[in-house]
Amino acid sequence: MSDPRFFKTAKPLSLQEIATISGATLKGKNVDPEKQITDVAPLNTANSDQISFLDNKKYNDMFVTSKAGACFVTEEQAANAPEGMALLVTDKTYKAYALTAQKFYPDPSWTKTFIAPSAYIHPTAEIGANCIIDHNVYIGQHVKIGPNTWLKPNVVIGHGVEIGSHTIIGSNCSLSYCLIGSNVRLLPGVRIGQEGFGFAIDPAGHIPVPQLGRVIIGDKVWIGANSTIDRGAGPDTIIGDGCMIDNLVQIGHNVKIGKFAVIVSQVGISGSAEIEDYVVLAGQVGVAGHITVGRGSRVGAKSGIMKDVPAGSEVMGAPAIPLKDYFRQIATLAKLAKKPQTTTEQQ
Amino acid sequence: MSDPRFFKTAKPLSLQEIATISGATLKGKNVDPEKQITDVAPLNTANSDQISFLDNKKYNDMFVTSKAGACFVTEEQAANAPEGMALLVTDKTYKAYALTAQKFYPDPSWTKTFIAPSAYIHPTAEIGANCIIDHNVYIGQHVKIGPNTWLKPNVVIGHGVEIGSHTIIGSNCSLSYCLIGSNVRLLPGVRIGQEGFGFAIDPAGHIPVPQLGRVIIGDKVWIGANSTIDRGAGPDTIIGDGCMIDNLVQIGHNVKIGKFAVIVSQVGISGSAEIEDYVVLAGQVGVAGHITVGRGSRVGAKSGIMKDVPAGSEVMGAPAIPLKDYFRQIATLAKLAKKPQTTTEQQ
Amino acid sequence: MSDPRFFKTAKPLSLQEIATISGATLKGKNVDPEKQITDVAPLNTANSDQISFLDNKKYNDMFVTSKAGACFVTEEQAANAPEGMALLVTDKTYKAYALTAQKFYPDPSWTKTFIAPSAYIHPTAEIGANCIIDHNVYIGQHVKIGPNTWLKPNVVIGHGVEIGSHTIIGSNCSLSYCLIGSNVRLLPGVRIGQEGFGFAIDPAGHIPVPQLGRVIIGDKVWIGANSTIDRGAGPDTIIGDGCMIDNLVQIGHNVKIGKFAVIVSQVGISGSAEIEDYVVLAGQVGVAGHITVGRGSRVGAKSGIMKDVPAGSEVMGAPAIPLKDYFRQIATLAKLAKKPQTTTEQQ
Repeated sequence: MSDPRFFKTAKPLSLQEIATISGATLKGKNVDPEKQITDVAPLNTANSDQISFLDNKKYNDMFVTSKAGACFVTEEQAANAPEGMALLVTDKTYKAYALTAQKFYPDPSWTKTFIAPSAYIHPTAEIGANCIIDHNVYIGQHVKIGPNTWLKPNVVIGHGVEIGSHTIIGSNCSLSYCLIGSNVRLLPGVRIGQEGFGFAIDPAGHIPVPQLGRVIIGDKVWIGANSTIDRGAGPDTIIGDGCMIDNLVQIGHNVKIGKFAVIVSQVGISGSAEIEDYVVLAGQVGVAGHITVGRGSRVGAKSGIMKDVPAGSEVMGAPAIPLKDYFRQIATLAKLAKKPQTTTEQQ
Repeated sequence: MSDPRFFKTAKPLSLQEIATISGATLKGKNVDPEKQITDVAPLNTANSDQISFLDNKKYNDMFVTSKAGACFVTEEQAANAPEGMALLVTDKTYKAYALTAQKFYPDPSWTKTFIAPSAYIHPTAEIGANCIIDHNVYIGQHVKIGPNTWLKPNVVIGHGVEIGSHTIIGSNCSLSYCLIGSNVRLLPGVRIGQEGFGFAIDPAGHIPVPQLGRVIIGDKVWIGANSTIDRGAGPDTIIGDGCMIDNLVQIGHNVKIGKFAVIVSQVGISGSAEIEDYVVLAGQVGVAGHITVGRGSRVGAKSGIMKDVPAGSEVMGAPAIPLKDYFRQIATLAKLAKKPQTTTEQQ
Repeated sequence: MSDPRFFKTAKPLSLQEIATISGATLKGKNVDPEKQITDVAPLNTANSDQISFLDNKKYNDMFVTSKAGACFVTEEQAANAPEGMALLVTDKTYKAYALTAQKFYPDPSWTKTFIAPSAYIHPTAEIGANCIIDHNVYIGQHVKIGPNTWLKPNVVIGHGVEIGSHTIIGSNCSLSYCLIGSNVRLLPGVRIGQEGFGFAIDPAGHIPVPQLGRVIIGDKVWIGANSTIDRGAGPDTIIGDGCMIDNLVQIGHNVKIGKFAVIVSQVGISGSAEIEDYVVLAGQVGVAGHITVGRGSRVGAKSGIMKDVPAGSEVMGAPAIPLKDYFRQIATLAKLAKKPQTTTEQQ
């Protein structure tokens, strides 16, 4: 059970309701579709009123001894279920779990406007209905904020910024020169819209180039803590709908990211790179400037992308190469290093 | 044209004025030196009242069809210009563009002091003339701030800190134990002067060593969002004049960086390393402690510097080696991995 | 001498007192155990009233010419001491120095409660005796803070968070969904407890999974500037007693870190990884999810840990391998790349 100091579950759901929410099919002997489930829980701690999921073979042992009242499983695993467990059968157990957990722990909601007395809102700013403007927030000139949006404490919104509806901006974030969509989540400490790293190199002192673009962030984008997204130099920096961006990620000026990309922690994307739809960049990847990573490509952790990656690729390494080649090179080098070095020399 | 919600251009400039500002030579048939230019713009969107630049052969096609009224080009490229385009010929087209763009989009300026009512300023602090001390700023004891400096909202300045003139500190920055020069730019979320990572390793509990130095930052230094610079342990941490430091960079205690160094995003520089003048460290580079990277050296992205790098080097890889060797090693390994592994064994 | 704008030394200590504090043995000709020492200082700047230390052979030359009145040295080095220097002999010179420096520069202390007028404290929050709640701090519902704890300016503490005693939270930090121990130090800009990177991948839009765990941080933990620690997804994220965590470190959901681990700057630890007691992860290391790094292991800078590391290992590289193998592979590749490539082919 989640810690009640931090979490509160919504009302119980019947197995039948959960089947509808999750798209899973209810199975199991003597299962009562009206049985009430009160919470989600991991396999090893769930009780008979709770629902769990099995997503990874690694956890099979936990599954067969689980005391969960119900569980999302695949058809294949269903046969191994312990007696008395109600089964919700689906190909996508984790998705089914996610949809169900969202019902037990819905996003925060509120029913009236709150503007903290310590918030500063410039008179020219427009705040939508039913917003929370929290303590010590700063909102500059001509800012526009849609309805049902929440700015957490100490957020700073620079002049001209526009934010959609149902968006939550985490504490201590700084936004400038940007247009933010709806249903966006920014975690604490995100920096969006500051000037990018653009200057003419000069031995007498580098000459900063005014950065004249914006950052445009689509709907349902998620951006992790302390990540930084620079505004464009002339073109815009663009983050497509539904992108998931983790903590401490750097996105340079003019970068374009397509829809539903997944960018894991500490990735750095250099200026003017393009990351197409559904790309996955694993942790600590670096992408050089003016590079395109094609649609649906998957890039392994710590890789360095130095040239275009065709759509649908799987690459790894620095510089990144196809995944198969990467592992073959690793194995080759290991083999060569193990041989007595004199062998080759003596031939 | 830049988005007027965020940007405002200064007054138009004649081609003659632009030639003077940029050091370029005005050329082209029937060019009127008094023709007014109203803005800068990229080659593919510029109109006949705007000026653009050509810096990269990649954009030649865009150049020959551009509708820009004027363009910075090299002598070599001038012949390819479309008819009617005024040419400003120079070897350094990007520098010329930068200087001109700065005139159209000058740094913010203001003509009177503003101290937000919510700012806290300790009575012993000294604030120069014509400063902006923005909302929710905190300024501790004995802080000294030079004239024409702007502290953006939610900045925290610890006791004893000194800041020069014409410096802009971005929102949500934290400064302590540091002396900051003039014309410095700190982007949002920068942390300067916190205690460095210094402790005596001990199995019964590591013993923190008081960090007794400062951070000293020269003039015209630029530091990107969410970067962190620790104060010295006894000596100081020093950042030379004109350094350009990108987002999410880590600089450890006692590090010395010379003048005009360029440190790209997510670089980490360990304690007591020395980075000499004009060094360029590309993205995600790591530098070990007590290492010197010699004047003017260039270090490729993701490199790991484990020993001193002589002045003027070009290195890459982890551990970093001369650039040529790096690419030869990459090629060698690729070749060896492609061969059937049995060949060598059968010999 | 440290800069008096920032630092103030406590009262002088006699050599005898320093011997007691540090566990070192006082030696040297004609040494007066009552001689007063006023400060710590590096070998090359210390004067006859100050004490220094020799920890690294590299500094032997500095030692033999040092004017320090006293010095921590090993038995082995004692013979090289300059005349007139009092010696404090110990095997652990740096530890002895650390303990002594802590006496000259003790942690800040104060003797009464201070709550800034601009701080917001929810009426249900409980603040212990003798706390400092600094300017523009935000404290949410049901927060509990132990005695003698200091929240620096612009800190945001979300609902339900509990913090122990004698803890210092740096400026602009954001804490939520966490329980923090005593004698903890968070440097500025740390983010703790935000939701982790958990979602079901779905082509129609990734589905965030409610993150129902907490972050639990032990006693005497040190966390560097702008580091980020996500709360657990269901289990908790746990940081053991006495861990030292540097700047810009990312720690994913469900990670467990044992006691006294040392995590250097820009390390990234993926979800559900386990880092056991006394592990050292050098700068920019990445650890994959669901991996265990065994007790006391040491991982070289920039390494990528892709599988379990047994206790007591020394590994390096990406993917990480035993240190010896790593250096052998580096050397092998260098050798192969230097050979004329035709040699092998002609055989």
